[in-house]
Amino acid sequence: MDLKEFVTIVPDYPKEGISFKDISTIMDNGKAYKFATDEIVKFAKEVETDIIVGPEARGFIIGCPVAYALEAGFAPVRKPGKLPRETIEVEYDLEYGKDVLTIHKDAIKPGQRVLIVDDLLATGGTIGATIELVEKLGGIVAGCAFIIELSYLDGRNKLKGYDMRSLITY
Amino acid sequence: MDLKEFVTIVPDYPKEGISFKDISTIMDNGKAYKFATDEIVKFAKEVETDIIVGPEARGFIIGCPVAYALEAGFAPVRKPGKLPRETIEVEYDLEYGKDVLTIHKDAIKPGQRVLIVDDLLATGGTIGATIELVEKLGGIVAGCAFIIELSYLDGRNKLKGYDMRSLITY
Repeated sequence: MDLKEFVTIVPDYPKEGISFKDISTIMDNGKAYKFATDEIVKFAKEVETDIIVGPEARGFIIGCPVAYALEAGFAPVRKPGKLPRETIEVEYDLEYGKDVLTIHKDAIKPGQRVLIVDDLLATGGTIGATIELVEKLGGIVAGCAFIIELSYLDGRNKLKGYDMRSLITY
Repeated sequence: MDLKEFVTIVPDYPKEGISFKDISTIMDNGKAYKFATDEIVKFAKEVETDIIVGPEARGFIIGCPVAYALEAGFAPVRKPGKLPRETIEVEYDLEYGKDVLTIHKDAIKPGQRVLIVDDLLATGGTIGATIELVEKLGGIVAGCAFIIELSYLDGRNKLKGYDMRSLITY
Protein backbone atom coordinates (compact mmCIF):
# COMPACT_ATOMS: atom_id res chain seq x y z
CA MET A 1 0.00 0.00 0.00
CA ASP A 2 1.34 3.44 -0.92
CA LEU A 3 0.43 5.45 2.19
CA LYS A 4 1.48 8.72 0.54
CA GLU A 5 -1.68 8.53 -1.60
CA PHE A 6 -3.77 8.87 1.57
CA VAL A 7 -2.03 12.06 2.80
CA THR A 8 -3.88 15.30 2.00
CA ILE A 9 -1.71 18.33 1.27
CA VAL A 10 -3.35 21.48 2.70
CA PRO A 11 -1.80 24.64 1.22
CA ASP A 12 -1.18 27.69 3.45
CA TYR A 13 -1.97 25.93 6.77
CA PRO A 14 -1.38 26.78 9.58
CA LYS A 15 0.02 29.89 7.87
CA GLU A 16 0.75 31.21 4.37
CA GLY A 17 3.55 29.38 2.59
CA ILE A 18 3.32 26.22 4.70
CA SER A 19 2.06 23.12 2.91
CA PHE A 20 0.52 21.03 5.71
CA LYS A 21 0.64 17.24 5.46
CA ASP A 22 -2.72 16.07 6.82
CA ILE A 23 -2.77 12.46 8.03
CA SER A 24 -6.47 12.53 9.02
CA THR A 25 -7.23 11.01 5.62
CA ILE A 26 -5.05 8.03 6.55
CA MET A 27 -6.80 7.66 9.91
CA ASP A 28 -10.39 7.84 8.66
CA ASN A 29 -9.67 4.97 6.24
CA GLY A 30 -9.69 1.70 8.21
CA LYS A 31 -7.36 -0.18 5.86
CA ALA A 32 -4.78 2.61 5.58
CA TYR A 33 -4.85 3.22 9.35
CA LYS A 34 -4.30 -0.47 10.07
CA PHE A 35 -1.49 -0.70 7.49
CA ALA A 36 0.32 2.32 8.99
CA THR A 37 -0.09 0.97 12.53
CA ASP A 38 1.17 -2.49 11.56
CA GLU A 39 4.30 -1.01 9.93
CA ILE A 40 5.13 0.77 13.22
CA VAL A 41 4.33 -2.41 15.18
CA LYS A 42 6.95 -4.27 13.10
CA PHE A 43 9.56 -1.65 13.99
CA ALA A 44 8.48 -1.74 17.66
CA LYS A 45 9.14 -5.48 17.72
CA GLU A 46 12.54 -5.09 16.01
CA VAL A 47 13.71 -2.60 18.66
CA GLU A 48 12.05 -4.50 21.57
CA THR A 49 9.45 -2.19 23.06
CA ASP A 50 7.93 -2.36 26.56
CA ILE A 51 5.79 0.80 26.44
CA ILE A 52 4.71 3.47 23.95
CA VAL A 53 5.00 7.22 24.61
CA GLY A 54 3.35 9.82 22.38
CA PRO A 55 3.00 13.62 22.57
CA GLU A 56 -0.51 15.11 22.43
CA ALA A 57 -2.65 14.96 20.47
CA ARG A 58 -1.74 13.35 17.15
CA GLY A 59 0.89 11.19 18.89
CA PHE A 60 -2.06 9.55 20.69
CA ILE A 61 -3.80 8.72 17.41
CA ILE A 62 -0.69 6.98 16.09
CA GLY A 63 0.74 5.52 19.30
CA CYS A 64 -2.34 4.06 21.00
CA PRO A 65 -3.20 1.38 18.43
CA VAL A 66 0.48 0.39 18.37
CA ALA A 67 0.33 -0.12 22.15
CA TYR A 68 -2.85 -2.20 21.77
CA ALA A 69 -1.33 -4.42 19.06
CA LEU A 70 1.72 -5.08 21.27
CA GLU A 71 -0.40 -5.50 24.44
CA ALA A 72 1.83 -2.73 25.83
CA GLY A 73 0.96 0.34 27.87
CA PHE A 74 0.70 3.90 26.53
CA ALA A 75 1.96 6.96 28.41
CA PRO A 76 0.85 10.40 27.19
CA VAL A 77 3.14 13.45 27.00
CA ARG A 78 1.07 16.60 27.43
CA LYS A 79 1.13 20.36 27.83
CA PRO A 80 1.39 21.62 31.44
CA GLY A 81 -1.76 21.31 33.58
CA LYS A 82 -3.28 18.46 31.58
CA LEU A 83 -2.00 15.48 33.60
CA PRO A 84 -3.65 15.05 37.00
CA ARG A 85 -0.82 13.52 39.06
CA GLU A 86 2.80 14.43 39.81
CA THR A 87 4.74 15.22 36.62
CA ILE A 88 8.20 16.15 35.46
CA GLU A 89 8.66 18.74 32.72
CA VAL A 90 11.07 19.79 29.98
CA GLU A 91 11.25 23.17 28.28
CA TYR A 92 12.16 23.32 24.60
CA ASP A 93 12.63 25.94 21.89
CA LEU A 94 10.02 26.77 19.28
CA GLU A 95 10.61 28.85 16.15
CA TYR A 96 9.52 31.84 18.26
CA GLY A 97 9.59 31.37 22.03
CA LYS A 98 9.52 28.28 24.18
CA ASP A 99 7.14 25.50 25.10
CA VAL A 100 6.92 22.94 27.90
CA LEU A 101 5.97 19.25 27.84
CA THR A 102 5.17 17.05 30.84
CA ILE A 103 4.84 13.35 31.69
CA HIS A 104 3.59 11.58 34.82
CA LYS A 105 6.51 10.84 37.14
CA ASP A 106 5.46 7.17 37.43
CA ALA A 107 4.65 6.67 33.72
CA ILE A 108 7.94 4.91 32.91
CA LYS A 109 9.78 2.45 35.13
CA PRO A 110 13.59 2.68 35.08
CA GLY A 111 15.03 0.33 32.45
CA GLN A 112 11.80 0.08 30.41
CA ARG A 113 12.33 0.20 26.66
CA VAL A 114 10.24 3.03 25.22
CA LEU A 115 9.07 3.57 21.65
CA ILE A 116 8.27 7.25 21.02
CA VAL A 117 5.58 7.72 18.37
CA ASP A 118 4.25 10.82 16.63
CA ASP A 119 2.52 11.69 13.38
CA LEU A 120 5.31 13.87 11.97
CA LEU A 121 9.03 14.50 12.40
CA ALA A 122 9.80 18.12 11.48
CA THR A 123 12.65 19.99 13.25
CA GLY A 124 12.64 17.43 16.08
CA GLY A 125 11.85 19.89 18.89
CA THR A 126 8.88 18.01 20.32
CA ILE A 127 10.58 14.63 19.96
CA GLY A 128 13.83 15.89 21.50
CA ALA A 129 11.87 17.08 24.54
CA THR A 130 9.98 13.78 24.71
CA ILE A 131 13.27 11.83 24.63
CA GLU A 132 14.55 14.00 27.48
CA LEU A 133 11.41 13.27 29.57
CA VAL A 134 11.74 9.51 29.01
CA GLU A 135 15.44 9.49 29.88
CA LYS A 136 14.90 11.64 33.00
CA LEU A 137 12.59 8.87 34.26
CA GLY A 138 15.27 6.22 33.58
CA GLY A 139 13.61 4.84 30.46
CA ILE A 140 15.64 3.61 27.47
CA VAL A 141 14.58 5.08 24.13
CA ALA A 142 14.32 1.95 21.98
CA GLY A 143 13.35 4.01 18.93
CA CYS A 144 11.21 6.78 17.45
CA ALA A 145 8.56 6.17 14.78
CA PHE A 146 6.63 8.60 12.60
CA ILE A 147 4.09 8.43 9.82
CA ILE A 148 5.75 11.35 8.00
CA GLU A 149 9.28 12.77 8.03
CA LEU A 150 10.01 16.21 6.54
CA SER A 151 13.62 15.38 5.70
CA TYR A 152 14.44 18.96 4.57
CA LEU A 153 13.96 20.15 8.17
CA ASP A 154 16.73 17.80 9.30
CA GLY A 155 15.11 16.58 12.53
CA ARG A 156 16.85 13.23 12.08
CA ASN A 157 20.27 14.86 12.36
CA LYS A 158 19.23 16.68 15.55
CA LEU A 159 18.23 13.35 17.10
CA LYS A 160 21.16 11.27 15.86
CA GLY A 161 22.11 8.27 17.93
CA TYR A 162 18.46 7.19 18.17
CA ASP A 163 16.88 4.49 16.01
CA MET A 164 14.33 6.23 13.78
CA ARG A 165 11.67 4.94 11.39
CA SER A 166 9.31 6.96 9.21
CA LEU A 167 6.76 5.55 6.80
CA ILE A 168 6.60 8.49 4.36
CA THR A 169 9.37 10.99 3.54
CA TYR A 170 9.05 14.41 1.90
CA MET B 1 -10.46 -8.22 35.34
CA ASP B 2 -11.75 -5.51 37.70
CA LEU B 3 -10.81 -2.36 35.80
CA LYS B 4 -11.81 -0.15 38.73
CA GLU B 5 -8.68 -1.30 40.57
CA PHE B 6 -6.57 0.39 37.87
CA VAL B 7 -8.26 3.81 38.19
CA THR B 8 -6.38 6.34 40.34
CA ILE B 9 -8.51 8.75 42.35
CA VAL B 10 -6.84 12.19 42.46
CA PRO B 11 -8.34 14.40 45.19
CA ASP B 12 -8.93 18.11 44.54
CA TYR B 13 -8.16 18.00 40.81
CA PRO B 14 -8.71 20.01 38.65
CA LYS B 15 -10.09 22.07 41.56
CA GLU B 16 -10.81 21.70 45.26
CA GLY B 17 -13.62 19.31 46.08
CA ILE B 18 -13.43 17.41 42.77
CA SER B 19 -12.22 13.82 43.01
CA PHE B 20 -10.70 13.18 39.58
CA LYS B 21 -10.86 9.67 38.11
CA ASP B 22 -7.51 9.18 36.37
CA ILE B 23 -7.49 6.50 33.67
CA SER B 24 -3.79 6.94 32.81
CA THR B 25 -3.06 4.05 35.20
CA ILE B 26 -5.27 1.82 33.05
CA MET B 27 -3.53 2.97 29.86
CA ASP B 28 0.05 2.52 31.04
CA ASN B 29 -0.70 -1.11 31.94
CA GLY B 30 -0.70 -3.18 28.73
CA LYS B 31 -3.08 -5.88 29.99
CA ALA B 32 -5.61 -3.45 31.50
CA TYR B 33 -5.53 -1.23 28.40
CA LYS B 34 -6.13 -4.21 26.11
CA PHE B 35 -8.94 -5.52 28.32
CA ALA B 36 -10.70 -2.14 28.33
CA THR B 37 -10.30 -1.78 24.55
CA ASP B 38 -11.61 -5.29 23.87
CA GLU B 39 -14.72 -4.65 25.99
CA ILE B 40 -15.51 -1.59 23.86
CA VAL B 41 -14.75 -3.56 20.69
CA LYS B 42 -17.41 -6.14 21.72
CA PHE B 43 -19.98 -3.33 22.10
CA ALA B 44 -18.87 -1.80 18.78
CA LYS B 45 -19.60 -5.11 17.05
CA GLU B 46 -22.99 -5.49 18.77
CA VAL B 47 -24.13 -2.08 17.52
CA GLU B 48 -22.49 -2.49 14.06
CA THR B 49 -19.87 0.20 13.75
CA ASP B 50 -18.34 1.59 10.53
CA ILE B 51 -16.16 4.33 12.03
CA ILE B 52 -15.05 5.60 15.45
CA VAL B 53 -15.29 9.25 16.53
CA GLY B 54 -13.61 10.57 19.68
CA PRO B 55 -13.20 14.05 21.19
CA GLU B 56 -9.69 15.28 21.99
CA ALA B 57 -7.56 14.26 23.65
CA ARG B 58 -8.49 11.33 25.92
CA GLY B 59 -11.13 10.21 23.42
CA PHE B 60 -8.21 9.51 21.05
CA ILE B 61 -6.48 7.28 23.63
CA ILE B 62 -9.63 5.17 24.05
CA GLY B 63 -11.05 5.31 20.52
CA CYS B 64 -7.98 4.74 18.34
CA PRO B 65 -7.17 1.16 19.46
CA VAL B 66 -10.87 0.30 19.07
CA ALA B 67 -10.70 1.53 15.46
CA TYR B 68 -7.56 -0.54 14.87
CA ALA B 69 -9.12 -3.71 16.31
CA LEU B 70 -12.17 -3.28 14.04
CA GLU B 71 -10.05 -2.28 11.02
CA ALA B 72 -12.24 0.84 11.00
CA GLY B 73 -11.31 4.48 10.56
CA PHE B 74 -11.02 7.08 13.31
CA ALA B 75 -12.24 10.68 12.99
CA PRO B 76 -11.11 13.20 15.62
CA VAL B 77 -13.35 15.87 17.16
CA ARG B 78 -11.23 18.87 18.16
CA LYS B 79 -11.26 22.41 19.46
CA PRO B 80 -11.49 25.16 16.79
CA GLY B 81 -8.32 25.77 14.74
CA LYS B 82 -6.85 22.31 15.26
CA LEU B 83 -8.17 20.57 12.14
CA PRO B 84 -6.51 21.66 8.89
CA ARG B 85 -9.34 21.24 6.38
CA GLU B 86 -12.95 22.43 6.10
CA THR B 87 -14.89 21.75 9.31
CA ILE B 88 -18.37 22.11 10.77
CA GLU B 89 -18.77 23.21 14.38
CA VAL B 90 -21.18 22.97 17.31
CA GLU B 91 -21.33 25.27 20.34
CA TYR B 92 -22.24 23.77 23.70
CA ASP B 93 -22.70 24.92 27.30
CA LEU B 94 -20.07 24.47 29.99
CA GLU B 95 -20.65 24.98 33.73
CA TYR B 96 -19.54 28.57 33.15
CA GLY B 97 -19.62 29.82 29.56
CA LYS B 98 -19.55 28.01 26.26
CA ASP B 99 -17.19 25.89 24.21
CA VAL B 100 -17.00 24.83 20.56
CA LEU B 101 -16.10 21.48 18.98
CA THR B 102 -15.32 20.84 15.31
CA ILE B 103 -15.04 17.90 12.91
CA HIS B 104 -13.80 17.69 9.32
CA LYS B 105 -16.72 18.10 6.91
CA ASP B 106 -15.71 14.92 5.03
CA ALA B 107 -14.91 12.80 8.14
CA ILE B 108 -18.23 10.90 8.08
CA LYS B 109 -20.09 9.73 5.00
CA PRO B 110 -23.92 9.96 5.15
CA GLY B 111 -25.38 6.71 6.48
CA GLN B 112 -22.16 5.53 8.18
CA ARG B 113 -22.71 3.96 11.59
CA VAL B 114 -20.59 5.84 14.12
CA LEU B 115 -19.41 4.73 17.56
CA ILE B 116 -18.57 7.74 19.76
CA VAL B 117 -15.89 6.93 22.34
CA ASP B 118 -14.51 8.93 25.27
CA ASP B 119 -12.80 8.23 28.57
CA LEU B 120 -15.55 9.59 30.79
CA LEU B 121 -19.26 10.42 30.71
CA ALA B 122 -20.00 13.25 33.14
CA THR B 123 -22.81 15.75 32.39
CA GLY B 124 -22.83 14.71 28.74
CA GLY B 125 -21.98 18.15 27.30
CA THR B 126 -19.04 17.07 25.17
CA ILE B 127 -20.79 13.91 24.00
CA GLY B 128 -24.02 15.76 23.20
CA ALA B 129 -22.02 18.15 20.99
CA THR B 130 -20.18 15.24 19.37
CA ILE B 131 -23.50 13.50 18.58
CA GLU B 132 -24.75 16.74 17.00
CA LEU B 133 -21.61 16.96 14.80
CA VAL B 134 -21.99 13.35 13.63
CA GLU B 135 -25.69 13.77 12.83
CA LYS B 136 -25.11 17.08 11.00
CA LEU B 137 -22.84 15.12 8.64
CA GLY B 138 -25.54 12.49 8.07
CA GLY B 139 -23.90 9.84 10.28
CA ILE B 140 -25.96 7.44 12.38
CA VAL B 141 -24.90 7.26 16.03
CA ALA B 142 -24.69 3.50 16.58
CA GLY B 143 -23.69 3.97 20.21
CA CYS B 144 -21.53 5.77 22.76
CA ALA B 145 -18.90 4.00 24.87
CA PHE B 146 -16.93 5.17 27.91
CA ILE B 147 -14.41 3.76 30.31
CA ILE B 148 -16.04 5.60 33.24
CA GLU B 149 -19.55 6.92 33.85
CA LEU B 150 -20.25 9.34 36.72
CA SER B 151 -23.86 8.28 37.11
CA TYR B 152 -24.66 10.99 39.71
CA LEU B 153 -24.13 13.66 37.01
CA ASP B 154 -26.92 12.07 34.95
CA GLY B 155 -25.30 12.40 31.52
CA ARG B 156 -27.11 9.22 30.43
CA ASN B 157 -30.49 10.86 30.91
CA LYS B 158 -29.43 13.89 28.87
CA LEU B 159 -28.45 11.57 26.01
CA LYS B 160 -31.41 9.20 26.19
CA GLY B 161 -32.40 7.44 23.00
CA TYR B 162 -28.77 6.52 22.30
CA ASP B 163 -27.23 3.14 23.04
CA MET B 164 -24.65 3.67 25.82
CA ARG B 165 -22.02 1.43 27.38
CA SER B 166 -19.64 2.26 30.21
CA LEU B 167 -17.12 -0.13 31.76
CA ILE B 168 -16.95 1.43 35.24
CA THR B 169 -19.68 3.33 37.09
CA TYR B 170 -19.32 5.67 40.08
